[in-house]
Amino acid sequence: MHIDNLSTPCAVVDLERLEKNATRMATRAKRLGVQLRPHVKTHKCVEAARIQTAEACGGITVSTLAEARAFAAGGFSDITYAVPIAPQKILMAIDLHTRIEAFNLVVDTLDAAAAVEAAAEARGVRIPVFLEIDCGGGRTGVDPDGEVRDVLVRRIAASEAIDFRGLLTHAGHAYRARNRTDAYDIACAERNLMATLAAELRDRGVPVPVVSVGATPTVLAIDDLTGITEVRPGNYLIFDAFQNGIGTCEVDEIAFSVLATVISVHPEQNRAVVDAGALALSVDPGPVHVDPECGFGRIVAVEDQHPLPGLRIARLTQEHGTLTGPGVAALRPGARLRIFPNHSCLSAACFESYHVLRGTEVVDEWHPARGW
Amino acid sequence: MHIDNLSTPCAVVDLERLEKNATRMATRAKRLGVQLRPHVKTHKCVEAARIQTAEACGGITVSTLAEARAFAAGGFSDITYAVPIAPQKILMAIDLHTRIEAFNLVVDTLDAAAAVEAAAEARGVRIPVFLEIDCGGGRTGVDPDGEVRDVLVRRIAASEAIDFRGLLTHAGHAYRARNRTDAYDIACAERNLMATLAAELRDRGVPVPVVSVGATPTVLAIDDLTGITEVRPGNYLIFDAFQNGIGTCEVDEIAFSVLATVISVHPEQNRAVVDAGALALSVDPGPVHVDPECGFGRIVAVEDQHPLPGLRIARLTQEHGTLTGPGVAALRPGARLRIFPNHSCLSAACFESYHVLRGTEVVDEWHPARGW
Repeated sequence: MHIDNLSTPCAVVDLERLEKNATRMATRAKRLGVQLRPHVKTHKCVEAARIQTAEACGGITVSTLAEARAFAAGGFSDITYAVPIAPQKILMAIDLHTRIEAFNLVVDTLDAAAAVEAAAEARGVRIPVFLEIDCGGGRTGVDPDGEVRDVLVRRIAASEAIDFRGLLTHAGHAYRARNRTDAYDIACAERNLMATLAAELRDRGVPVPVVSVGATPTVLAIDDLTGITEVRPGNYLIFDAFQNGIGTCEVDEIAFSVLATVISVHPEQNRAVVDAGALALSVDPGPVHVDPECGFGRIVAVEDQHPLPGLRIARLTQEHGTLTGPGVAALRPGARLRIFPNHSCLSAACFESYHVLRGTEVVDEWHPARGW
Repeated sequence: MHIDNLSTPCAVVDLERLEKNATRMATRAKRLGVQLRPHVKTHKCVEAARIQTAEACGGITVSTLAEARAFAAGGFSDITYAVPIAPQKILMAIDLHTRIEAFNLVVDTLDAAAAVEAAAEARGVRIPVFLEIDCGGGRTGVDPDGEVRDVLVRRIAASEAIDFRGLLTHAGHAYRARNRTDAYDIACAERNLMATLAAELRDRGVPVPVVSVGATPTVLAIDDLTGITEVRPGNYLIFDAFQNGIGTCEVDEIAFSVLATVISVHPEQNRAVVDAGALALSVDPGPVHVDPECGFGRIVAVEDQHPLPGLRIARLTQEHGTLTGPGVAALRPGARLRIFPNHSCLSAACFESYHVLRGTEVVDEWHPARGW
């Protein structure tokens, strides 16, 4: 099928770009001497993860138990659930762990560590666990300098029911970078912190098999990961307008787009409307810290994906994307556009499936593991 | 099943509140002397629409063809698709129209009107069509004072293949209201404009059977709809934190919430994290024009839904909701909270199903018609 025959709005993956992005990251991880454990939350598709892991280790990272179950069913046997586990989900996690090689959990509180330990003891299993460190993102993870860190390490490392896998962090603040230099600085600080912490623990006799970092902007900015053993970027496989805005990728590396149809044109009012609204693109505001006028995504031509700078997505409501700019005068109802969303992860999750294209031909359809 | 046994994050509907909201709006529409044609895009569930339409006409409004198909299959036979139709979707719309009593389309361009006419002629059917008027929302609809309006009315009214149903508008700018007085002013302006336009057309001999307005804030603010025949509010059935913020509803009328579990607590950093992030709540910024510190939803207690003012949802990422405020010190991992999202329509669309509760007991599960 040709792209022109797809009904809109729909999600479209550029397979050639995706494959290039996968190869580039795998090569980069090898050169940096770290294992690549891609975060599959961006696309939630087994097919995409197979492409990502072909040239690196088979390990992946997930953000939900629904992803974990789907990827386990799809043949992935070494999965890290990189969100602190809710006590109520521990039994489900243990069940999954007993069915695959390793389902690695993350904790950042004593309560969660104690709950994992108790459940593992009750089931007679040993559960692999990472301690999450807050390297500056200010979301989850223990304060690297705080007392909680030491208490937790002692508890986890001493437990018979817990297999302490090491330290894990996510530099979410790299998304506030303005450019590659900012991301580089954040990546260096993240590396230095994690490598130092791991060395300290080892000096105290605590084995730290894995030191895991990762976010697309930092991994792509840094040139030396000494002291780090693993990276977990996710967005890099398909990128988005945000990553382009902060200098992480070029426009022609973005491999995910939403195909849309123009449904209303009123040039005298400087506006047109497409059928891709908040439920197709998500209302992620994009890199407004770099470009306050960035709008809700980047509009490109359907066939060759060249940017159409005369059009801006000024506003999104549920099923309407309002375009402004000099380009609206050239539009007619029925015209089709391709939109690079601000945040591919959030936009992709809006769709039941993605149409996978080579050039303008649909060659496959992938179904993400949505929900929880 | 008790609410405590639900896995999180999940969507929860308070059936008692929903029924009260439905009754109140139906009573209100009767008193105002207008037909209630509820917009079902908010919940996308046949079960909810049955409750909405029990006391008014059976007509409903939809925002996608997927909703139209699902509601037609669910027994709804008079459906208005209140988004300007894309030329490529006209044949699908005609197919649907031939299977139910009426599938009413909306156009706001000559191109779309001509395309509907041509397709209807080719199929030998007469298609009911509304002309959309822009009453100030600045999204879709013709300029009420512009030349396009007259050209379109002439074209539609003269067509043998088009059954001109009347005028339709949506005061989307009512969402920028700061309070009920603002909404009232917008509602009066909308009513006056639409009633005047309809009268002008009738004076020229053009029958205008329906004059349709509607948005939850305006319909709930106005006390006189003389000249209007139909209202299409949607959000009123379940409301949300936004509607509460602009004074459209009370907190105890909000009937949709997301149940979440605390997964990380670090009081020394003034933060805790729940497992409801951007993919459960949507990143709708909420009524920031009224309260810049509103955060990404309102947190309430699980059982009696009383507000917990000491907690604010400061930030959302894909699967993390970061809470701040004095209330975090009292939280423990595993604690559960209920969150009124900023925008129920966008949050509800994140879920494969909603758990329907009477009090704290789950009595049903509804499946929205997602996608397009």
